[in-house]
Amino acid sequence: MHIDLNSDMGESFGAYTIGADEEILRWVTSANVACGWHGGDPHVMRQTVTRAKALGVAVGAHPSYPDLLGFGRRVMQITRQEARDYMLYQVGALRAFVEAAGLTLQHVKPHGAIYNVAVKDRELSLGIAEGVKDAGGDLILVGLPDSEILKAGQELGLRVGREAFGDRAYNEDGTLVSRKIAGSLITDPATVAQRVLGLAQGRVVAITGKEIRLQADTICLHGDTPGAATIAKGVREALEGSGTQVRPMGEFLRRLA
Amino acid sequence: MHIDLNSDMGESFGAYTIGADEEILRWVTSANVACGWHGGDPHVMRQTVTRAKALGVAVGAHPSYPDLLGFGRRVMQITRQEARDYMLYQVGALRAFVEAAGLTLQHVKPHGAIYNVAVKDRELSLGIAEGVKDAGGDLILVGLPDSEILKAGQELGLRVGREAFGDRAYNEDGTLVSRKIAGSLITDPATVAQRVLGLAQGRVVAITGKEIRLQADTICLHGDTPGAATIAKGVREALEGSGTQVRPMGEFLRRLA
Amino acid sequence: MHIDLNSDMGESFGAYTIGADEEILRWVTSANVACGWHGGDPHVMRQTVTRAKALGVAVGAHPSYPDLLGFGRRVMQITRQEARDYMLYQVGALRAFVEAAGLTLQHVKPHGAIYNVAVKDRELSLGIAEGVKDAGGDLILVGLPDSEILKAGQELGLRVGREAFGDRAYNEDGTLVSRKIAGSLITDPATVAQRVLGLAQGRVVAITGKEIRLQADTICLHGDTPGAATIAKGVREALEGSGTQVRPMGEFLRRLA
Amino acid sequence: MHIDLNSDMGESFGAYTIGADEEILRWVTSANVACGWHGGDPHVMRQTVTRAKALGVAVGAHPSYPDLLGFGRRVMQITRQEARDYMLYQVGALRAFVEAAGLTLQHVKPHGAIYNVAVKDRELSLGIAEGVKDAGGDLILVGLPDSEILKAGQELGLRVGREAFGDRAYNEDGTLVSRKIAGSLITDPATVAQRVLGLAQGRVVAITGKEIRLQADTICLHGDTPGAATIAKGVREALEGSGTQVRPMGEFLRRLA
Repeated sequence: MHIDLNSDMGESFGAYTIGADEEILRWVTSANVACGWHGGDPHVMRQTVTRAKALGVAVGAHPSYPDLLGFGRRVMQITRQEARDYMLYQVGALRAFVEAAGLTLQHVKPHGAIYNVAVKDRELSLGIAEGVKDAGGDLILVGLPDSEILKAGQELGLRVGREAFGDRAYNEDGTLVSRKIAGSLITDPATVAQRVLGLAQGRVVAITGKEIRLQADTICLHGDTPGAATIAKGVREALEGSGTQVRPMGEFLRRLA
Repeated sequence: MHIDLNSDMGESFGAYTIGADEEILRWVTSANVACGWHGGDPHVMRQTVTRAKALGVAVGAHPSYPDLLGFGRRVMQITRQEARDYMLYQVGALRAFVEAAGLTLQHVKPHGAIYNVAVKDRELSLGIAEGVKDAGGDLILVGLPDSEILKAGQELGLRVGREAFGDRAYNEDGTLVSRKIAGSLITDPATVAQRVLGLAQGRVVAITGKEIRLQADTICLHGDTPGAATIAKGVREALEGSGTQVRPMGEFLRRLA
Repeated sequence: MHIDLNSDMGESFGAYTIGADEEILRWVTSANVACGWHGGDPHVMRQTVTRAKALGVAVGAHPSYPDLLGFGRRVMQITRQEARDYMLYQVGALRAFVEAAGLTLQHVKPHGAIYNVAVKDRELSLGIAEGVKDAGGDLILVGLPDSEILKAGQELGLRVGREAFGDRAYNEDGTLVSRKIAGSLITDPATVAQRVLGLAQGRVVAITGKEIRLQADTICLHGDTPGAATIAKGVREALEGSGTQVRPMGEFLRRLA
Repeated sequence: MHIDLNSDMGESFGAYTIGADEEILRWVTSANVACGWHGGDPHVMRQTVTRAKALGVAVGAHPSYPDLLGFGRRVMQITRQEARDYMLYQVGALRAFVEAAGLTLQHVKPHGAIYNVAVKDRELSLGIAEGVKDAGGDLILVGLPDSEILKAGQELGLRVGREAFGDRAYNEDGTLVSRKIAGSLITDPATVAQRVLGLAQGRVVAITGKEIRLQADTICLHGDTPGAATIAKGVREALEGSGTQVRPMGEFLRRLA
């Protein structure tokens, strides 16, 4: 059994610092690095890649809508072609830093609002997947299981990474419970660790109490919540204590035939 | 004898169109493509690369200070490290489009104010050259002959391209006559063509009337002046009529030992 | 009988020029001046205000979503509070130039996508109207007749200006025919002038051929279409030939009781 | 005897938080509020103005070069006209929030690099002063004593505010000791308070040990240094303990005849 742990990184910008990158980096196996459009800048990108390399963490791109003011969290109506071009630009920019550090870019995980919209929007998802395919290099496209974005990725022959969340409640159909609903966020470190352990084995208890099947390749650990580092440490240790191999997804993900 | 003809391209942005790209592209062998920091956007970058490919024109990056409002024409005080990171970001972004089109990025020519400052600023030049070296791929760094930027490039083992201008007057020491001085700009197409012919052979008549030596690998044709396409056509035809080979600089430039 | 003629102005940015401002300004009575978020910059704002003053044209603000790359034409999901703050910022910035020129800001007409979304979105409309009310100064809020934005403006006690289009086809219910439908755009100058004449009298022939009532205070003349100046001239002359008073809307619009 | 205490505020941006605004606001009498070009955004501007009003703190604008990535700390070569237009834009935007809160904008203090360059650059200073004068409203222009910017302000008939620093060492000629020199920054709260007390009386001990005359109307308290709130509190209490009136500079500054 193997699982990847990912976290968003490198979202600081200029004089502004955000996130607990250094602490979280110790516990994850993949870093999603911002590319300057919602956060991150060339200096932060270089620094984040360097830190990831030092800890043996695989690096992916975390591209966004062009919305620094809104931190990429606001829906924008862009065309399929715009999505394609925006992804390619950001992935290319980050990859230059990754390759300058002697690493290979592992994956692309869209950020914030564009990630969420892509779950159900086929046109946007096709644009994103086309941009990632344009970039070449056997990149993994990361998204929710059964999302339009992963379908688009598979149609284009990309490797895809199914992402799950240890600190989010699930509906019985495997979708995430809206953040607006009480109980949608799980903050107890032990509970999160327990849920991640289940997710690594393909199951999770839905908010209704029923256990459901949920296949995941990578678990997202948030870096911007209180106690994030404690939770990350707990998750990593629980996984390793259970005998689960915690490895960068690039090492075990294959193209689906 | 061989020479390259280059021109700045792809500086349109969003709803804004600038330059006479399509007309000029027919006569040059290298295109310096804006990377989004002074002009250009992901859509324009893709389109410009596609056009260049269709005409067999080699593509280079045309990175800038981060100053869209000032079109990259204003001096900014940035550090060597900032220059390095800014170059790598922009070169990486453009290269993604170039490689997606099945081409190889040929060169990097800094844009506007950063190009001018780098002529004499060793620290800035080192930062630029380091960013280009970080990008790898045997890129050619383009600048004025005897400039600090070409020295920096050579010190780092980069190929360098010496650029000259057919429509600018020169001082006897080979530096450009300031645009503020009358006679610094040459607008007569036949005169420009004649001067380019001389430059392809390593000589030009200075503003004083004395002929000086000036070795150039590539001649810049401006796309934003009135009659730019006519001048470009005249230069190309004059060169070919003289038996000079007009080819992308990447085909004939070697590393200096 | 009186009517106002308005046009979008000052959308150039830095090195980029767009629109036929000088030609159109001669024929309109109100200018909607971009505020730097989708187009325009401080220099362009000052210049546009100066030109408008010289021709006796009243000045309004033309604020936008924060989307220079998309020219404000893409829908963004922003909150009511964000809309309020964004309007106030842009209106304040433009008003400084208007007052420095010795003029009084007359109106606010949101630009592009935010204008369109506000037609039906009550929350967004309330945010916009609140921002305009915050700005004070008896500003007129301009939008489509019967739109949510004009309702919001009236609820807050603002003067409102009902806008109509001489070059757009209307449905029988007074809404605009989508641009995607053939015949939605009217390009014949004489026909546009004829329709504007009708609109000044409160009526227009819908795309179905049926004449409908449509009360308008101001007619929008586009500056970015081919022949824009010719159409603008024709409209102005037709109105004046018919004895209609063409005046800035600020001179005849009163608060609705 | 009276003195003003000012501090830079409202430099957070979007998802990014910076500074200790709430703590510092309790001890100052004037707030320099960022206008969105180096920090700040419309939401932050509204919030900062609201907080200042609640505590009776006077509000000024803190305009910058257009350089969010560099936090306004990098020199840019802009023209006198650009400086004028950039100031007017930013002052107008902030003033809209100030007036919406029922306050009157008190002053303008340029931020970071443009503040520093203006000390000696007459052309830039004239542009800044012209922009402030354009804005009208009897605004106070704040800068270093004997700086070009204050001279320019006085020539244009503006009120000017002479700024001093309690935590910076001075040369015998009244200029600031470069931050690169050891001892240029004073971090001991008691020492800072003692120096501010002297400055309120027109004198300070230079780095050479000699006491010099230095007339100041307002003392800058930094909000981004460790212990900033403690220092601010100590300074305020020392001044009040000494019988000095600590009041917004707008209450006591008159135009120089």
